[in-house]
Amino acid sequence: MAKGANTKGAKGMMMLEAYAERYRRDLFDSVIPFWERHSLDREHGGYFTCLDRDGSVYDSRKYVWLQGRAVWMFARLYNTVERRQAWLDAATLGVEFLRRHARDGEGRVFFSLTREGQPHFFQRKPYGAVFYQMGLLEYARATGDAACLAEAVELFWQIVGWIADPALLGRQALPGQAPMSKLADLLVVGMMAADLAQQLDDPRYLQVVRDTLAGVARHYDPARRIFREHVAHDGRDLMDTPEGRLFLPGHSIETAWIVLHMLDLVPSAEHTTMALEAVEGSLELGWDAGHGGLLYFMDLAGRPTLQLEATMKLWWPHAEAIYALVLAAVRTGEPRWLRWLERVDAYTYSHFPDPEHGEWFGYLERDGSLALSSKGGNYKGFFHVPRALLFSVQAIEARI
Amino acid sequence: MAKGANTKGAKGMMMLEAYAERYRRDLFDSVIPFWERHSLDREHGGYFTCLDRDGSVYDSRKYVWLQGRAVWMFARLYNTVERRQAWLDAATLGVEFLRRHARDGEGRVFFSLTREGQPHFFQRKPYGAVFYQMGLLEYARATGDAACLAEAVELFWQIVGWIADPALLGRQALPGQAPMSKLADLLVVGMMAADLAQQLDDPRYLQVVRDTLAGVARHYDPARRIFREHVAHDGRDLMDTPEGRLFLPGHSIETAWIVLHMLDLVPSAEHTTMALEAVEGSLELGWDAGHGGLLYFMDLAGRPTLQLEATMKLWWPHAEAIYALVLAAVRTGEPRWLRWLERVDAYTYSHFPDPEHGEWFGYLERDGSLALSSKGGNYKGFFHVPRALLFSVQAIEARI
Repeated sequence: MAKGANTKGAKGMMMLEAYAERYRRDLFDSVIPFWERHSLDREHGGYFTCLDRDGSVYDSRKYVWLQGRAVWMFARLYNTVERRQAWLDAATLGVEFLRRHARDGEGRVFFSLTREGQPHFFQRKPYGAVFYQMGLLEYARATGDAACLAEAVELFWQIVGWIADPALLGRQALPGQAPMSKLADLLVVGMMAADLAQQLDDPRYLQVVRDTLAGVARHYDPARRIFREHVAHDGRDLMDTPEGRLFLPGHSIETAWIVLHMLDLVPSAEHTTMALEAVEGSLELGWDAGHGGLLYFMDLAGRPTLQLEATMKLWWPHAEAIYALVLAAVRTGEPRWLRWLERVDAYTYSHFPDPEHGEWFGYLERDGSLALSSKGGNYKGFFHVPRALLFSVQAIEARI
Repeated sequence: MAKGANTKGAKGMMMLEAYAERYRRDLFDSVIPFWERHSLDREHGGYFTCLDRDGSVYDSRKYVWLQGRAVWMFARLYNTVERRQAWLDAATLGVEFLRRHARDGEGRVFFSLTREGQPHFFQRKPYGAVFYQMGLLEYARATGDAACLAEAVELFWQIVGWIADPALLGRQALPGQAPMSKLADLLVVGMMAADLAQQLDDPRYLQVVRDTLAGVARHYDPARRIFREHVAHDGRDLMDTPEGRLFLPGHSIETAWIVLHMLDLVPSAEHTTMALEAVEGSLELGWDAGHGGLLYFMDLAGRPTLQLEATMKLWWPHAEAIYALVLAAVRTGEPRWLRWLERVDAYTYSHFPDPEHGEWFGYLERDGSLALSSKGGNYKGFFHVPRALLFSVQAIEARI
């Protein structure tokens, strides 16, 4: 073992407990209060997510990804921290809004709704439905609501169908599209299945988790120790395409800890090693040596990306990295994780949190200066930050 | 008249002639050779546009916006600079590829094709068709090809129909969408109609140009002296929505010179003043006082934008600004335009062109450092830079 604090030793645990204290305080004194104060729309239901620095609403639309995610988060707090009525009420506010407004006549899920709930935009992607489903299921766990559970089950299988045949979402299959495996699609199905497997005695869900792990393993690039976003179903090399070369450090790290969670259900030493190596490999490749912080998009051959925002520093890769490192440290006791945690934590806590109004900023320029003053938008809501902080605190507490 | 060089005087004309010389050299010695050397796919037809710094191809797909735009550009060079066979051949390479592959069974136009021409992606927007149409029409002017002209006419009216009813492109109208006038839609229709009006003796096209000017005038914000991206059809204030507050300095400036071109067909002193004021107002509001250069997206109330890349510096707003300023200087003789031209030209020529391999870079961080090494991508091709340089040179030459 390399030199440094062994996290199973007393010194390592003391360090981890200091991080837990920081994350606990951030979560309960800054992050949750910010969203409770500014996000709940008690008039029309659901949540505002487009919140400026001070919490003021700059777009009153309801973005469904973030409605579902906030339901999940409030219900998870209620389920695993404390049965606080305010959290359950906040979750109910979102569930009722979603159940009233989020789906069209064919059961497909809109991307955005007006403040009042009228459909505003339909995205030809399954992710709105995914986060709606995850919210429903966590809410069903909180309340025992059988209708929510039934809808979550039904929606899960619909989503599996939509991912298998995107034409059902209006995305016509075209002959020039090389079929490829998408990491994001694999992961969301695996996450939903893992949650279902824990609530329902049905072997099909564990089988989906197993299939997901096998699929994710095909995205692992052992030379770079990262997960790639796209690989060919037949193992063909895709390095001649931007998709094949695409690497999202934050997503690769998020994948790693989600895999570790799934492995609690279907253990495998080989996959555990793969996930841990991917945490370190993704940090090594994705860390911006010049300015610090994790880059958003990268091309594995050093070619330009098609994504303009590639070099920005976003909040969520840093939140994901913190939790992945805490989890790796707690599980393995290896000192390498604390060394990386110190670095990621230092960058994160000197750049993202806003001590004045609470919560984290989301979007920095490459050099670390603030690009946008928003605390939330159409893709940032009550999700990545509180989830990473809560999971980190819980992982460390479980160890003490 | 304010103090400074009167561009109708000898000193002003000397300054403009010096700019013309710079732009002429950039266009003919750097920009055109770069694309001629690296973009033409003589094997499968069409153009590579995803070109790295040195011209190497990092994505071999054919993006239809940029295929149509390059056809237009090569044909325009042939039509207005010199009847050089290589330019006509280059345009033919694109036209034949597009006519073989770009449209589906219903005549709709794909967004991207594989290198060989198989459909890869369909965007629920009319702009692929717009640039295809403009390429066809300019090519018909070069060759007298009646089939191309007929297809350009037919496609124009189809596009008008698609913009009026986006459901025809698969973008379902939803009750939560506030109907609003989109500057981009107005402009592309007006540009196509202005070109058609010059080639065909049909009063309908001039009427579309007139309607476009009336529509664009409704986007003019006299307090700020800019064009807004979205306004309500009924004049209702949209400042409570991100769309209503959206300002693209480069697009507002591009709109201004396109309006000045349209006014050559249907003169109006009032609209001329509006367009000139919009050039100055857009520069004043869009110029980044700290780092220089034009911002990409802005919110008129200073709220965060939903677009992450808002603070980046892109090549095309600077190209558009150079031509708008040259045009304003030549047409009015007022010294304010040369003062702005000096500033915009200095920023542009110290940041975008690549003296080593030719052509301009496209994407800078806010602080002016290079974000992406690409010379082209899925939205940057052989279009904005050569168009702005050619038009600037021609405007100044016409004056001498």
